[in-house]
Amino acid sequence: MPAHFSIKRRVRFSETDLAGVVHFSNYFRMMEEVEHEFFRSLGLSIVMTHEALEIGWPRVNASCEYFGPLRFEDEVELLMRVTKVGDKSFNYEVEFQWEGRKVALGKMTSVCCEMLDVGMRSISIPPGIRQKLVAGGMGGSEDEK
Amino acid sequence: MPAHFSIKRRVRFSETDLAGVVHFSNYFRMMEEVEHEFFRSLGLSIVMTHEALEIGWPRVNASCEYFGPLRFEDEVELLMRVTKVGDKSFNYEVEFQWEGRKVALGKMTSVCCEMLDVGMRSISIPPGIRQKLVAGGMGGSEDEK
Amino acid sequence: MPAHFSIKRRVRFSETDLAGVVHFSNYFRMMEEVEHEFFRSLGLSIVMTHEALEIGWPRVNASCEYFGPLRFEDEVELLMRVTKVGDKSFNYEVEFQWEGRKVALGKMTSVCCEMLDVGMRSISIPPGIRQKLVAGGMGGSEDEK
Amino acid sequence: MPAHFSIKRRVRFSETDLAGVVHFSNYFRMMEEVEHEFFRSLGLSIVMTHEALEIGWPRVNASCEYFGPLRFEDEVELLMRVTKVGDKSFNYEVEFQWEGRKVALGKMTSVCCEMLDVGMRSISIPPGIRQKLVAGGMGGSEDEK
Repeated sequence: MPAHFSIKRRVRFSETDLAGVVHFSNYFRMMEEVEHEFFRSLGLSIVMTHEALEIGWPRVNASCEYFGPLRFEDEVELLMRVTKVGDKSFNYEVEFQWEGRKVALGKMTSVCCEMLDVGMRSISIPPGIRQKLVAGGMGGSEDEK
Repeated sequence: MPAHFSIKRRVRFSETDLAGVVHFSNYFRMMEEVEHEFFRSLGLSIVMTHEALEIGWPRVNASCEYFGPLRFEDEVELLMRVTKVGDKSFNYEVEFQWEGRKVALGKMTSVCCEMLDVGMRSISIPPGIRQKLVAGGMGGSEDEK
Repeated sequence: MPAHFSIKRRVRFSETDLAGVVHFSNYFRMMEEVEHEFFRSLGLSIVMTHEALEIGWPRVNASCEYFGPLRFEDEVELLMRVTKVGDKSFNYEVEFQWEGRKVALGKMTSVCCEMLDVGMRSISIPPGIRQKLVAGGMGGSEDEK
Repeated sequence: MPAHFSIKRRVRFSETDLAGVVHFSNYFRMMEEVEHEFFRSLGLSIVMTHEALEIGWPRVNASCEYFGPLRFEDEVELLMRVTKVGDKSFNYEVEFQWEGRKVALGKMTSVCCEMLDVGMRSISIPPGIRQKLVAGGMGGSEDEK
C-alpha cells in the first residue's frame, strides 16, 4: 500500500541516548508529529472544536517494530498510511525510512472523543472529519486494501 | 500469570500534555524504568560488561494498550512479568495499575547484543545472565505458561 | 545556607544523550521534581485550588550551572533551598550532588498566578500558602540570609 | 544586536504540559535545535572530528527568561545571536518570537572539549572552527557590541 502523506525531519541531539541512537520512545513522538502534520494538511487539528464539540483523539494502541538504528543528524522520512477509518476509531501506520531503507514501522489506533470537563466519551467520527481522513489518508476507500 | 517485580512511582508534571494526562510516549519510558530496576534487582545493568563483552539490549518491538488515563501526581504501580527468555531475546510485559485498576498494558522485546565500535551484533544471552532473568523474572521456567 | 528539603533519585537511561551523560535540559526537569515533592511535603500541590482560586506557578526565570556530568544509574541528591518568598513570586535553588560533590546548581523563579479560562494573572501569594513556603523552605524568615 | 541565524518551527503536542503550554524545559531543547542548525549551516557539527580531535561542546551555563506562553501548533521563530567566542568557550542567545513578540530569551555558554575515552578536557577552540563561528554568528567581530 502506498503512503499518502510524508514528512522529512532530522534527528535531534536530545532524541538520542547513551547508546548513540534515537531512544525507542521517541519514535512514538515522531509518529505523532507526522500524524499532526497530516491533520493540518487536511485543515484539521488533533485538538479542535468541530460543530460545537470539543474533539480529541486519545490513543488506545501504539506499537513499533525496530529494524535498525537512527542516529544524530540522520534525515529520516516518515511515511504515513491511514489503514482504517472506523466508526469511532482511526488507524494508521508510519514507515520510518533512512537512506531509502525501512528502519522502523509504527502503528497507532486513536479513538474520536468528545472532551468534557468531567472526562471524555467516544463518539462516531463526525462526517466532515471522516470524509477528510478517508480522502486525504486513504485515497478514498475506508478500509485497507 | 503473576508479576515478579514491581515498582511504584508518581506521575511527574513534565510527563503530562495539554490534554491533562500522561503523554502516551511516556508509558514506554516507564516500562524502561521498571525493566532497569528489575535488572538492578538481579545485580545486572542494562549497560554492562559481562565476561569481557560489552552488552546492550536494543528493542525490536514495543507496544502499549491504553485503557484509561494517568494524571499528574497519580501514584502508578508498574507490575513487570518476564514472558519469555529466548536464545537471544527477552520479552516482558508491564501492567500499569492505578488505584488497583489496570490502566495500560505494555509489551517489549529486546535482543541481547554485543556492542562493538562499528555497531552491534546479536548474541546468545550469556548463561550467567539468562539464569538470573529466568530465576528473577519468571520464577524459574523459561517460557510463559 | 543549608538546604531545607532534599530527595535522592537515580539517573534514568532516557535522560542520557549520545555523549553518555544526562542531557542538560533534564536538569530542569529534576529541579521541578524536587520542587513538586517539596510542595507535597507541605500539603500543597503545584496545581491546586486554594480558597476557590485555581492556582498555578509559571516560571519566569530558570538557569543552571554545570560543574560535572551525571551518568546513567548515578544516584543524584537534589538539595532544595527556598531563597526568597516575595509578594507574588517564589525563588529557589537546587544543588545537584553526586557522591558528595556539587555537580550542578540550578535556580528558578516562579510567579503565583490565578489560572483563568482566558489565560492567567499574577496574584499575591495567598497567606496560607506563603506561610507554608516560608516555614517549610526557609526555616521561617522570608529573605535569604 | 541583530540576529545572525534563525529558524522557524512549530510547537509539537508532546512539548506541552497540563497547563496547556510548552513545558519550560523544552525551551532549552529548542535552543539546542537552533544551535545545531547554525553549526550545520557553517559546515560544522556539534559532534565532530576536527583535525583528528573528537570535539564536543558541553554546556557550563544555560538560562531562560519567560515573558509569555507558547502553545500547541504555534509557529515560533528562534533568533540566534553569538555573543562571544572566547578562547575555549562560546556564548549565544536565542530570542523566541511568536507573532512578532518576544516570548522568551535564552542564553547558553558551551566549552570546546576534546572527548577522550576517560572523559573530556577543555581545549582552545581550533582556529578553523573559531573563524566560522565568528564569521557566521557575529558578522566578523569576536565580542558583543
